[in-house]
Amino acid sequence: MSMTEHQSLTQVDQSARPSNFVNHERLNARLSEMAKIGATPGGGVNRAALTPEDAKAQLQLARWATDLGLFVTRDAIGNLFLRLEGTQPELLPVLSGSHIDSQPTGGKFDGIYGVIAALEAVQAIVESGCAVSRSVEVVAWVNEEGSRFAPSMMGSGVYAVLRSLDAALHLVDAEGVSVKAALQQLEPLFTSIPMRPMGLPIYRYIEAHIEQGPVLEKDGLEIGVVTGIQGKHTYKVTVTGEAAHAGTAPHKTRKDALLAAAGMVTALATELCDAQDITRFTVGRLNVYPNAPSVVPQEVVFSVDLRHPDRELLEQLSALVPEVCNRMAAPCSAHVERLYTAAPIEFDQRLQQNIEAAARDLGMTYRFMLSAAGHDAGPIQSKYPAGMIFVPSVSGITHNEAELTHPRDLTNGTQVLANVLWSLSME
Amino acid sequence: MSMTEHQSLTQVDQSARPSNFVNHERLNARLSEMAKIGATPGGGVNRAALTPEDAKAQLQLARWATDLGLFVTRDAIGNLFLRLEGTQPELLPVLSGSHIDSQPTGGKFDGIYGVIAALEAVQAIVESGCAVSRSVEVVAWVNEEGSRFAPSMMGSGVYAVLRSLDAALHLVDAEGVSVKAALQQLEPLFTSIPMRPMGLPIYRYIEAHIEQGPVLEKDGLEIGVVTGIQGKHTYKVTVTGEAAHAGTAPHKTRKDALLAAAGMVTALATELCDAQDITRFTVGRLNVYPNAPSVVPQEVVFSVDLRHPDRELLEQLSALVPEVCNRMAAPCSAHVERLYTAAPIEFDQRLQQNIEAAARDLGMTYRFMLSAAGHDAGPIQSKYPAGMIFVPSVSGITHNEAELTHPRDLTNGTQVLANVLWSLSME
Repeated sequence: MSMTEHQSLTQVDQSARPSNFVNHERLNARLSEMAKIGATPGGGVNRAALTPEDAKAQLQLARWATDLGLFVTRDAIGNLFLRLEGTQPELLPVLSGSHIDSQPTGGKFDGIYGVIAALEAVQAIVESGCAVSRSVEVVAWVNEEGSRFAPSMMGSGVYAVLRSLDAALHLVDAEGVSVKAALQQLEPLFTSIPMRPMGLPIYRYIEAHIEQGPVLEKDGLEIGVVTGIQGKHTYKVTVTGEAAHAGTAPHKTRKDALLAAAGMVTALATELCDAQDITRFTVGRLNVYPNAPSVVPQEVVFSVDLRHPDRELLEQLSALVPEVCNRMAAPCSAHVERLYTAAPIEFDQRLQQNIEAAARDLGMTYRFMLSAAGHDAGPIQSKYPAGMIFVPSVSGITHNEAELTHPRDLTNGTQVLANVLWSLSME
Repeated sequence: MSMTEHQSLTQVDQSARPSNFVNHERLNARLSEMAKIGATPGGGVNRAALTPEDAKAQLQLARWATDLGLFVTRDAIGNLFLRLEGTQPELLPVLSGSHIDSQPTGGKFDGIYGVIAALEAVQAIVESGCAVSRSVEVVAWVNEEGSRFAPSMMGSGVYAVLRSLDAALHLVDAEGVSVKAALQQLEPLFTSIPMRPMGLPIYRYIEAHIEQGPVLEKDGLEIGVVTGIQGKHTYKVTVTGEAAHAGTAPHKTRKDALLAAAGMVTALATELCDAQDITRFTVGRLNVYPNAPSVVPQEVVFSVDLRHPDRELLEQLSALVPEVCNRMAAPCSAHVERLYTAAPIEFDQRLQQNIEAAARDLGMTYRFMLSAAGHDAGPIQSKYPAGMIFVPSVSGITHNEAELTHPRDLTNGTQVLANVLWSLSME
């Protein structure tokens, strides 16, 4: 970001900045209202994609938007858009939002915060009296979690043409219900909302989200400027040995699958690391068969979760997984299967600077940081410049009914978002 | 064994030796008859201690013994005795037998072979016309397996005063039924069998048993002269770390319980071994919590099974278990709990020589060998001189419906047993 651009943001009348019109009570009241939809006894939410709860939340959002004078539309995969028309509607719009769906025992902030924050930011822009050149659209991407219809980030993935609409419509849930059938069943609820074409081009995309990690809280910071999403490869390693009697079988003839697996885990941990502690290597699941105290293990199956922000380094480290497992397998054998590949994503540099400048102008503390988890901004970044704003998660707890972000932090993130959206809308 | 003793065995008329009267067909027919009692669809037996099946097998044994003119008695814990009266009944008797009970999906030979072989050996002595000075008693020890009433070797343990009769009577099964109640329920079936005092002193005890391991088959040998039973210590190791997100938690702050456990398993395997491959160290069970691919393991619980024939070395090796686990625990913590302690048992030297001489005289191939598993001869050896004869197990399979010993091998063991019992009865 050049000095000129920075100054264009700071030179406006400070009192008229949209951030001043972010309404702390309204933001938190809307989040509380949303938390009632699919509320769980444990204080979280269960709002799976394309269920009546998901639709109910979309319709609530549409009502708030309509009251504010926004134009509400949907697309064929179920993404919902709330448009503040700019003075130059022919320009590509600025988008901001996140998702409404949750994990089965999800928290009250994951996803929905980014949607409500975007609505609040747009409302703050409206109430500030600042005109916008580009239209600003709030978006609620459908099925980010992937907990009902796998894989995740379905709505944003189809929007960014990372996957075909047709393939997405044919995904089925555990009961065999397709996305298409689920959409059709909810259709009567949405008759008053006009459809729009899939994947209309956009200018920029900004997503506010809770961090879902402990970094901001630990560092005592208010805002995370997200630089990207680290890449992730996962593996399933099967170690095959031979069952034998713990009392009789001599060690020189044993094929102990657990002993081989222990060697692999240790060697992988030693080799898949770096001095800067950037590489993330985890064996989180390990199962032994037959798992009896007096039987030499016949088979061990374990997971490998490997993450790194650098695409090339991730590939290099990932190639070590089968290499190390095979090297450490004797006298057993190892079968290494890649389950999942997500390349690292780097968010638009200038948007990172925009977010940093907005936080600094508001006197907030911030840091640049990677996202460990995937977000809708990932697929969007593959086609358009995108950026993300993180707010602190208490104890980093997420995908959990105990998920919490303090109201003050929710408002901080929304203030940064409001100013960034406004400044982008003027470009 | 001195040459004189050896010659006393070989100098008898070869044609009159009891081994010549061991009836191959009768031995195998009786084993087949016993296999029908508690037979499982998979070709094995399920004959838990003090069940109607166990009693039915005892009563069948008592009928065969009565037909042969043996005197049948029981004791207060349910051990059954079949006595061939010697010409000098005031001398301590020679005992031989094993157990009738089985694992839930047990084989047709484990235990019952030693009982039927002892009956056949006594019958061969009777039919050979060789008089016996000492009485010879066949014994069926109750509840060797311990699968219904834990712990195992109950009847022989009480007999040898390793545990109190009262404590044994108060053991309960999974349904809460006590040994005492189970005995009382079966009592009406045994009204015709007189009771005898607990733990009458004996002269020698010899037990024939299937090897339950692969050694004799691998070496192509017919008879195992058992030198002792290796000692066994078992542990439960709990490694406590801290759950964390696989994507966000830096490695330097992690407390990965699986990584620590893998280090312990590897270090234990390295330190609990010896050049002669005598030490038996096994981690057969290992459970990870929460066992999710994207969660750094919070806790790992694993078993340690350690066996060695030398008491002092076993103690030394065993002391390394908590030492190594604690040394390898950081940054987690380890809790190491000893679950089971069985000291090594060394069988009577002269009885080993008696068995060796009998096998050699019969032209059978044999070797001295340790037993990896516990047997009733163990408790008995703690009070009286005891010995064991092993016959080969096909592929070493045991505690399994597929358990098999070839009929020829069953007969070989019985022939050795018959000659050893006869020679002891003349001492």
